Amino acid sequence: MEGDMRTPLLASSTSGASEPLQQRPGGPVVGIIGSGDFSRSLSIRLLACGFRVVVGSRDPRRVARGLFPDGVELRSQREAVEGADKVVFAAVYPDHYHTLVGLREPLAGKVLVDVSNATRLNGGGPSNAERLAEFFPKSKVMKGFNVVSAWALQAGAHDGSRQVLICGDCSDSKAAVLQLARRLGFSPVDLGGLCASRDIEEAPLMLFPSWGGPILATFLLFLFFYGYSFVRHILLPYLDKGENSFYQLPLVTVNEALPAVALVTLALVYLPGLLAAVLQLGRGTKYKRFPRWLDSWLCGRKQLGLLSFLCAALHAVYSVCLALRRAAGYTLLNAAYRQVKAGVENSWVEQQVWRSDLYLSCGVLGFGVLALLAVTSLPSVGNALNWREFTFVQSGLGYAALTLSVMHTLFFGWDFAFFPFAYPYYLPPVYLLALILPCAVLVGRIFLALPCLTWQLAKIRRGWESARHRPPNIQEPAEVDPPRSLGDV
Amino acid sequence: MEGDMRTPLLASSTSGASEPLQQRPGGPVVGIIGSGDFSRSLSIRLLACGFRVVVGSRDPRRVARGLFPDGVELRSQREAVEGADKVVFAAVYPDHYHTLVGLREPLAGKVLVDVSNATRLNGGGPSNAERLAEFFPKSKVMKGFNVVSAWALQAGAHDGSRQVLICGDCSDSKAAVLQLARRLGFSPVDLGGLCASRDIEEAPLMLFPSWGGPILATFLLFLFFYGYSFVRHILLPYLDKGENSFYQLPLVTVNEALPAVALVTLALVYLPGLLAAVLQLGRGTKYKRFPRWLDSWLCGRKQLGLLSFLCAALHAVYSVCLALRRAAGYTLLNAAYRQVKAGVENSWVEQQVWRSDLYLSCGVLGFGVLALLAVTSLPSVGNALNWREFTFVQSGLGYAALTLSVMHTLFFGWDFAFFPFAYPYYLPPVYLLALILPCAVLVGRIFLALPCLTWQLAKIRRGWESARHRPPNIQEPAEVDPPRSLGDV
Amino acid sequence: MEGDMRTPLLASSTSGASEPLQQRPGGPVVGIIGSGDFSRSLSIRLLACGFRVVVGSRDPRRVARGLFPDGVELRSQREAVEGADKVVFAAVYPDHYHTLVGLREPLAGKVLVDVSNATRLNGGGPSNAERLAEFFPKSKVMKGFNVVSAWALQAGAHDGSRQVLICGDCSDSKAAVLQLARRLGFSPVDLGGLCASRDIEEAPLMLFPSWGGPILATFLLFLFFYGYSFVRHILLPYLDKGENSFYQLPLVTVNEALPAVALVTLALVYLPGLLAAVLQLGRGTKYKRFPRWLDSWLCGRKQLGLLSFLCAALHAVYSVCLALRRAAGYTLLNAAYRQVKAGVENSWVEQQVWRSDLYLSCGVLGFGVLALLAVTSLPSVGNALNWREFTFVQSGLGYAALTLSVMHTLFFGWDFAFFPFAYPYYLPPVYLLALILPCAVLVGRIFLALPCLTWQLAKIRRGWESARHRPPNIQEPAEVDPPRSLGDV
Repeated sequence: MEGDMRTPLLASSTSGASEPLQQRPGGPVVGIIGSGDFSRSLSIRLLACGFRVVVGSRDPRRVARGLFPDGVELRSQREAVEGADKVVFAAVYPDHYHTLVGLREPLAGKVLVDVSNATRLNGGGPSNAERLAEFFPKSKVMKGFNVVSAWALQAGAHDGSRQVLICGDCSDSKAAVLQLARRLGFSPVDLGGLCASRDIEEAPLMLFPSWGGPILATFLLFLFFYGYSFVRHILLPYLDKGENSFYQLPLVTVNEALPAVALVTLALVYLPGLLAAVLQLGRGTKYKRFPRWLDSWLCGRKQLGLLSFLCAALHAVYSVCLALRRAAGYTLLNAAYRQVKAGVENSWVEQQVWRSDLYLSCGVLGFGVLALLAVTSLPSVGNALNWREFTFVQSGLGYAALTLSVMHTLFFGWDFAFFPFAYPYYLPPVYLLALILPCAVLVGRIFLALPCLTWQLAKIRRGWESARHRPPNIQEPAEVDPPRSLGDV
Repeated sequence: MEGDMRTPLLASSTSGASEPLQQRPGGPVVGIIGSGDFSRSLSIRLLACGFRVVVGSRDPRRVARGLFPDGVELRSQREAVEGADKVVFAAVYPDHYHTLVGLREPLAGKVLVDVSNATRLNGGGPSNAERLAEFFPKSKVMKGFNVVSAWALQAGAHDGSRQVLICGDCSDSKAAVLQLARRLGFSPVDLGGLCASRDIEEAPLMLFPSWGGPILATFLLFLFFYGYSFVRHILLPYLDKGENSFYQLPLVTVNEALPAVALVTLALVYLPGLLAAVLQLGRGTKYKRFPRWLDSWLCGRKQLGLLSFLCAALHAVYSVCLALRRAAGYTLLNAAYRQVKAGVENSWVEQQVWRSDLYLSCGVLGFGVLALLAVTSLPSVGNALNWREFTFVQSGLGYAALTLSVMHTLFFGWDFAFFPFAYPYYLPPVYLLALILPCAVLVGRIFLALPCLTWQLAKIRRGWESARHRPPNIQEPAEVDPPRSLGDV
Repeated sequence: MEGDMRTPLLASSTSGASEPLQQRPGGPVVGIIGSGDFSRSLSIRLLACGFRVVVGSRDPRRVARGLFPDGVELRSQREAVEGADKVVFAAVYPDHYHTLVGLREPLAGKVLVDVSNATRLNGGGPSNAERLAEFFPKSKVMKGFNVVSAWALQAGAHDGSRQVLICGDCSDSKAAVLQLARRLGFSPVDLGGLCASRDIEEAPLMLFPSWGGPILATFLLFLFFYGYSFVRHILLPYLDKGENSFYQLPLVTVNEALPAVALVTLALVYLPGLLAAVLQLGRGTKYKRFPRWLDSWLCGRKQLGLLSFLCAALHAVYSVCLALRRAAGYTLLNAAYRQVKAGVENSWVEQQVWRSDLYLSCGVLGFGVLALLAVTSLPSVGNALNWREFTFVQSGLGYAALTLSVMHTLFFGWDFAFFPFAYPYYLPPVYLLALILPCAVLVGRIFLALPCLTWQLAKIRRGWESARHRPPNIQEPAEVDPPRSLGDV
C-alpha cells in the first residue's frame, strides 16, 4: 500500500524534473528507443534515480502528449542513440527490430539492452536478443529487465520483485548494466552469456512451473478417493437396492475424499526425505546424485505441504458446513421424533461422546500445527528463520502434524473397521486406504531413528564415505562442512 | 523475530566499539547535532556500518549516561560539526533550529541532513528542511531518513522498511547522502530538489492514504444493505403487525448485509477494468489518459478486493455463529415439538437438501479462491510472481471467485424470487439487489471476450491507434512494447 | 516458488560457465578450501556473480564427480590458495583446521574467511574463527557467511534471508569481504572485531530465542486455568457427588481455559506499555533505562500478541467443534424429548437469545480485529507501514480488540456471577478470574488518557526532564527529536 503513497511523491518530483537536468549536468545519459509503456516507466525510474534520459521515437511530435515526464528529452531515434553516453535500451516490439537497422552506425560500440519477452514457451530459433545481436554486430547486446513489469519500474523497487535477470557476452558492458540495475534499486543476477537469453525471455511466461507436478498428484488423488467413495456409497447401493443418495455428491462425498487427500499428500511430503536417507545409507556416501525423480520430488515438498494444508482447510470448512446444512436439521428432527416415539429419555452414548471429542481434538490440533507450517512457508516469515529453526519447524512440527492427523483418523475410525458392516461390497472404508501411506512413513521414520542408523547417517552427511567409495590412499576425508545439507530429514 | 536475535549481537559489538575507532582511523566521521533517541539509534547504526560518529550536544556531560555506545564521541555542538568530515545530521526538534544559528560558520560547505517529520498534514509555509536551508544558506541542506523509525535504524535493515526518501538541491551532496544510506543498508530513493521535502516530511503522517476511498465505499454499501434489511425485516413488520424481531439486529441482519457487501465490492474490483477496456475501444487508442476517477478506482482495486474478502470471511463466521446461537437451538426444539405433535415421521425435503448443499459448496469454493487471492496480495508472495502468474491469479482466479459467489447467491435464492411472498411491502430481497452489479460485470466480461473485441483490444494495447489519432504520415507505429500495461483486464 | 523457476536458469548457465572464465579474464579469483556442500554451493553462487573460483581439495581427483559446475577449477589446497587473488574461504570442518597448517605460507597476507558454525550454545574457549586466527597469525581472518544456508547460496538471494553477519579485526580486509557479500546479493552487517565471532557462530543454533519467555508464560497460564477448571467442574463434583464428567477433558475444559489464556495474554501485551508510561511519569525523564525485566517484556509484546491470537483462534475452532460433537446432538435430542413430554410448545427465552447473539457478535468482531493485528505482524506487511500507521494498528486496533474481548466475556457472563450457583465449592467461574487483569489494563489506559497526564507524558517523551534531573545551568534542552520513541503506548 505504500506504493500508492509514494506515487504522488514521485509524480510531484518528476513534474519538476527538468531542473535536475540543469543541476547535475554530469549525470549519465541513457537512451531508450521506443515510446511505449515500458519506455515511459523506465524513463520515470531512470530520472528518479539521477540519470538523464533521451527517448527516441520515429515521430517524436506524435508522442509528446504529456505521457513522458518533463525531464525526458523526446528526440528522433537517431538523435536518442547519439545522445546516449553508453547504454541504449531497445524498448521496441521484436517484430520491428528490422526497422532499426538504420541505427547500426550510431549504435556501434554502444551497449544495447533488449528488454523484450518471448511470446510463447519453447519456441525454436534464436531468441529475440540473439536476433537483435545479429542485426547489430558492432553493438554489445545485453538481455535484461524483461522480468520487471512496467508497474515495478514506476512504483519503486519496494513494490515489485527486485530481482532482474541479465545476460550478455561482453563482460565490461555487462558490468555497466549490472551497475545501472543496482542504481535503479534492483538486484541484478548475472546468468552468463547471451545464450541464456532464451531462458530469460521465457521466464515471464512460466505459469507456476514448480506447482505442476504437486497439483497433478493432488488432483489425481482426489479423483481416486472421490470416485471410490462415489462407487462405494452411492453407485453400488443405488444399483443394488435402488437407494437414492445422490444428494451427497456436492458435500458429503467431497468431504470424504478431502481428508484422505490431505493425509496422503502430507505423507508424500515426508516420504522422499526417508527415501533419500535410505539411499544414502545404502550407498554409503552423500556424494552421489539422487535419481532425477527423487530430486524433483524433494523440490516439490513445500508445494505438496501447502496443497495438503489447503485440502485440510477445505475439509475443516466442509465439516462445519455438514452441520449447517438443511439435511443435518432434518436428520436431527427425525431422530427426535423417533426418540419420543420410542420413549427413550436419554440417548447419551458415553463411548460415542469420547470418540467424537477425541477425533475433533486431534483434528483441530493437527490442523493448527499444519497452519503454523503454512505460515512459515510465506517467504517473509521463512526468511527470518535460521537453519535450526527451519529444521525444527519443517521436520519437527511436520511430523507432529502427521502424527496428529493419523490419530485423528484412527479415533474417527474407532473400532468400526473390525466389523463386517464396514465392508459393504467388500470395499474397505476410505479412511483405511488413506492411512496406509502415512502409517508407513511414520514407521519408516521411527526405524531411521534407531541409534545405529542415526549415527551412521550423521556420519555420512558430515562427509564420511564407506570404503568402496574411498580412494585407497585416504583414511578419512578432512574436507567436510557443517551439517546443513538439504537432504536432512 | 530475528531482530530480537540480532539485538544482543549488535549490543555486544557496540559495547566494545571503541576499538574499531582506533583500528580503522580512515573511516569517515559523521556528525550528529542533538542527543535524542534518533541521534542515539543513528549513531549505533553508523558505528555498526564502519563510520566514526561525533555527537554534538549543548551540554555533553548531561547526556553521557551510557545511552550512547562507547565508540561515539560526545562533544559540544560546535566540536561535533567541526569534527565531521562532510555529513552532519540535524537531529534537533524543528522548533529549536534557531538555536543552531551559532553553528553557521563551521557548517558552511558541509552537508546538513534534516531528519525531522512534519507535525501535521497539509501545513502551510515552508517545510522544516526549507526553513533549515534559510538558516544555513552556505550549507547544503538535504532532506531524508525521516521515514525510518529509530527502531529500524537500530535493529538493522532487515526488520524495518528499507526504503529511504531523500531530496536536496546539490547533486554532489545528494550523491554522498545516497551513498551513505546505501552503506547503512537502506534503499535510498532520490525524489529531486528540496521542494519535495514537504512531501517527504508528511509521508510518516499519512494514515493508509490508499484505503480511504475503498473503506468509505464499503462502509456506505454496508449501511445501505443493513438499513434496507432492517426496514424490510424488522421495522415494517413491527409497525405493521407489532412483531418484535429486534433480537435479529446483532447477528441476523448483519449477516444479511455482509454477503451483499462482499458481492458488490467484488464486482467493483472488476468493473473499472471493463470500463477502461470500453474506453480504450471507444477512443481507439491507449495513449490517452483515463479520467481521474477511473485512474484512482483502478488503483484501489487491491484494497476493494481485500475488503470484499474481509466481508466474505465475516459472513462465513457469522453464518457458523447463526447455527451456534441459542435461538437456533430453540427453533430446532420447537420444530421437533411440532413434528412430534403433527406425527410426521420424516420431514426430509429433497429439494431443500440439494439447495443448501449446492449453495454451501459454491460459497466454500468461492471463498477459498478469494482466500488464495488475498494470500497473493501479501507483498512477499506477490513479489515472487511473474507477470503472467500475477495476471492468472488476479484476473483468472478473480473472475472464478466472482462467478462462484454469484452462483452461491443464485442457489441460495433458488426459485423463491418468483413467488409473491418474497416481496413483503413490495421490497425485493437483499440478495436480488446485490446480484445486479455482479451479473452486469459478468455479462460485460463475456461481451468483451467476443473474438472481434478481444482482437481489437489486443491491437490497441500493443500500441495501435485508430486513424483519427494517427498523424497522416505514419502508417503503423513501430514503437510498441510487450503487452504488459496495467490496464489489462 | 520463483526459486524453483530460477534454478533451471542458473543450472543452464553454470553448465556452460567455463566460457565466461575465458570471456572475463579480469574477474577476481576467489579460493575455497574444502569441497563439501557449502563449498559447492558457494562456488556456484560466486560463478553466477562473475567471480572465478578455485576449489582446493586434499585430493582433487576424488571430488570431481560432476558435483562442481564446469567453471570451477579443482586443484590441490595449496594451488587453490596460491591461485586466489585475495579472499580464501575455509569451508573445512573446524576439527580439521590443524590439517591446514601447511598452508600458512601461501595464506600469509590473504583474507581467510571462516564460515563454520558453533556445534553447541554457550561453549567455552575461543571461537572457531579465533582458533583459525591462532593457526594463521599472518592471515587476516574474517568471520561470516555462516548464517546463510547452502540452499540460500545456491537458490539466489531472493529465496533465503539476505542478511550476512560479518566480523573481523582488519578493516581493509573486512571492507573487501563486505563488498564481496554485496556482489553476491547479500546484505552484509558489520558486527565489529573478531571478538564478536562467537556470537556469529552461535546465531544459527538459536531456537526462537525471543519466543521462550512468551511461550512459557502462555503455557503456565494455560496450565493454571485448565487445572482450575478441571478441579471446579470435574474433580470436585466427582469426589463430592460421584458425577462422572471426565468426557469433558479433551474439548470442554480446554475450551474453558483457552479464552481465559487469550484474554490474559492480550492484557499482558498492553500492561508493560502502561508500566513504562507510569515509570516515565514518576521519574520525570525518559533518559533513564527501564529495569531489565520491563525491557525484555516490552520486547516480547509481539510474541505475546501472536500467542494470544493463536489461543483465540483455537477457542473459536473449539467452540464450533462443541456444536459439531456427538454430545451436542444427544443433549439436543434429550431436550426435545423433555420438551415434548412437558408439552411446552415454545421454549424461546428472549433474554438468552440476546445474550448469545451479543457475546457472539463481540467475539467475532474482537477476533477479526486481532486477526488484522496478526496479519500486520507479518514482516512483509509490517514493513510497508509508516510509523503512524504502525501505532494506529498496534495501539488503536489492539485496544479495540481488548475492549471487544472484555465485552465478549462480560456478555457471556451476563448476570450469572450475581447468583450463588455460580460459586460451587466457593470457586468463582473461570471467566471472572480472566477478567481481572484486562479490566485493570483498560482502567489504567483510561486513567493515562486524562489530559494532564497525556500532556505531561508527551512533554517527557519529547525530551523534557523534571528539575531534579536537569543540571542547574540549562533551562530547557534544545536537543529533542520527533516523538517516535519505542516506548510509545
